[in-house]
Amino acid sequence: MTLINHAWRLKTRPVGLVKPGDFEWVGEALPALQDGQLRVRNIHLSLDPAMRGWLIDRPSYVPPVQIGELMRGLAVGVVEASNHPKFAVGDIVQGMFGWQEYLQSDGTGVTKLPASPLPLEANLGLFGLAGMTSYFGLKEVGQPKAGETLLVSGAAGSVGALVGQMGKVLGLRVVGIAGGADKCDYLTRELGFDAAIDYKAAGSDLRKQIKAACPNGVDVYFENVGGEILDAALSVMNTFGRVVVCGLISQYNATEAVPGPYNFAMVISKRLKIQGFIATDYGNRVKEMVADMATWYAAGQLKYRVDVVQGLENAPLALNKLFDGSNQGKLMVQVSPLPA
Amino acid sequence: MTLINHAWRLKTRPVGLVKPGDFEWVGEALPALQDGQLRVRNIHLSLDPAMRGWLIDRPSYVPPVQIGELMRGLAVGVVEASNHPKFAVGDIVQGMFGWQEYLQSDGTGVTKLPASPLPLEANLGLFGLAGMTSYFGLKEVGQPKAGETLLVSGAAGSVGALVGQMGKVLGLRVVGIAGGADKCDYLTRELGFDAAIDYKAAGSDLRKQIKAACPNGVDVYFENVGGEILDAALSVMNTFGRVVVCGLISQYNATEAVPGPYNFAMVISKRLKIQGFIATDYGNRVKEMVADMATWYAAGQLKYRVDVVQGLENAPLALNKLFDGSNQGKLMVQVSPLPA
Repeated sequence: MTLINHAWRLKTRPVGLVKPGDFEWVGEALPALQDGQLRVRNIHLSLDPAMRGWLIDRPSYVPPVQIGELMRGLAVGVVEASNHPKFAVGDIVQGMFGWQEYLQSDGTGVTKLPASPLPLEANLGLFGLAGMTSYFGLKEVGQPKAGETLLVSGAAGSVGALVGQMGKVLGLRVVGIAGGADKCDYLTRELGFDAAIDYKAAGSDLRKQIKAACPNGVDVYFENVGGEILDAALSVMNTFGRVVVCGLISQYNATEAVPGPYNFAMVISKRLKIQGFIATDYGNRVKEMVADMATWYAAGQLKYRVDVVQGLENAPLALNKLFDGSNQGKLMVQVSPLPA
Repeated sequence: MTLINHAWRLKTRPVGLVKPGDFEWVGEALPALQDGQLRVRNIHLSLDPAMRGWLIDRPSYVPPVQIGELMRGLAVGVVEASNHPKFAVGDIVQGMFGWQEYLQSDGTGVTKLPASPLPLEANLGLFGLAGMTSYFGLKEVGQPKAGETLLVSGAAGSVGALVGQMGKVLGLRVVGIAGGADKCDYLTRELGFDAAIDYKAAGSDLRKQIKAACPNGVDVYFENVGGEILDAALSVMNTFGRVVVCGLISQYNATEAVPGPYNFAMVISKRLKIQGFIATDYGNRVKEMVADMATWYAAGQLKYRVDVVQGLENAPLALNKLFDGSNQGKLMVQVSPLPA
């Protein structure tokens, strides 16, 4: 029996949001499994804002995806066949398996996930990149102290929601910025944020609303968005405040040069530290993150939700959900059925 | 005998560069010296870029100078009369004595300077705000390591010149950015910079020229200028680079909102730390700075030059020299003769 592996390859570099035709849908016969190889059936593909940056032809922390190349992406899958001594059929594994149905590999970059009572989605929704990003971004870059005020933009996103909840665990006042009343309700009613600001409703009042929600100013600002929200946040930072630059989602689809914050001079007058990071910089500390997050989750202090798009064929356009405000929870594509 | 104290008071808030008429020249009779008071005759007034910011009516790390108020400024003077037990006639003192000929004070904020074999100008040119700013900015905020590359903008200014020389003392490759061939020659021939870039001649080639002068990229960028120079520098930073934001002199006279760096997204992809500071945050560590700088000066590893404008009456327009490129060396106003 010959398996056909369907996959998405980059066809042209998107301008603005991803359009049909930017990726090519291909189906290729898988060769026979060699000695020392394993075959992974992808189940969940993680869709993350940073992926939009991988499509741009410029030097960055990882090389851009090349035209004709398989689209890069983090995935969780199940080992379906194995000639590899360290992997058995049924193992749940994670890695940069890409936008395809199957991966045949010698095991390089394939990480076996420990057995867990949580649903399979938790691997991407609670741990994975979202967990790494929120945990190390807040803890290591933000240096939060109990009693301080934490402001989070993109707060209803997978990372922002975890960051805010962790802020509460660590004893901070937590204020989220999100788009729409539903998302704001979710933050305060479900996730325990102290306050939430709907930036769409706030308009030019955003700065005033942040000030009102943060009567003691902002000590740690966790930035997922950029643009006008960053400007407003900079203007209310406390002296010696920390700005954790996780994402600048407002500008990932920009087709023209985007100016930096107009309030940049606040960096001096308030002695701010603005620091960027990449979750994988902390790759050797995954266990620490998983241990803490699992503990907090078990204690009911962390919730997560997932937004699952069905079918690999829908992956390219699903990426746009991260940028048009429609995404609610950790976005992923379900490529194939869950293991029995 | 009644002494008349001439002084500059802020009359209107300058728009752009300072214009004649923005300050008012006043002469007021000094009251008799009370018990516990001392009288300081100002000799050197320090002119610093940050002073332009003090004239703007907005919250900052110090309150703005109010209309009608004496212009704030650091000065070095000599005690001319004293009814104060801790100060004697002839003592050399430093403090925020303002733009006036004399200060009568109960001693609050008046610091006695130790005897020194250096000329009096060294107090502002080598130590004072220039020393504090360059020493703690580079050492504490920049965290330089031997073998790294240090890029300095405004490199021929009083702070930039000291920063670059300290970079050499600490074993870094040092590249300066300055305006004009003369200043660049001064950096490489007199101060030992490894390379200097004339941003005026470079124009849109600035980024290429920085890349050529910094073949291993930039690890520490000491920012005095902002604007296009900051953008060019951000684009050549190494991963985990540090941007020390000391000044943004290109925008202090701006009359419209100035966009932040267009390359702001580099903060994430290169995991940069952008950090602002104020020299006086390190006010309790002056002795450490003076000890190191005096040692390096005595060893011939630090040079400074001063740009002395004669006469308090010229102070307001002299401030513009910091922004029009004409200033060479630590800018100060000589208010009265040196002590005999």
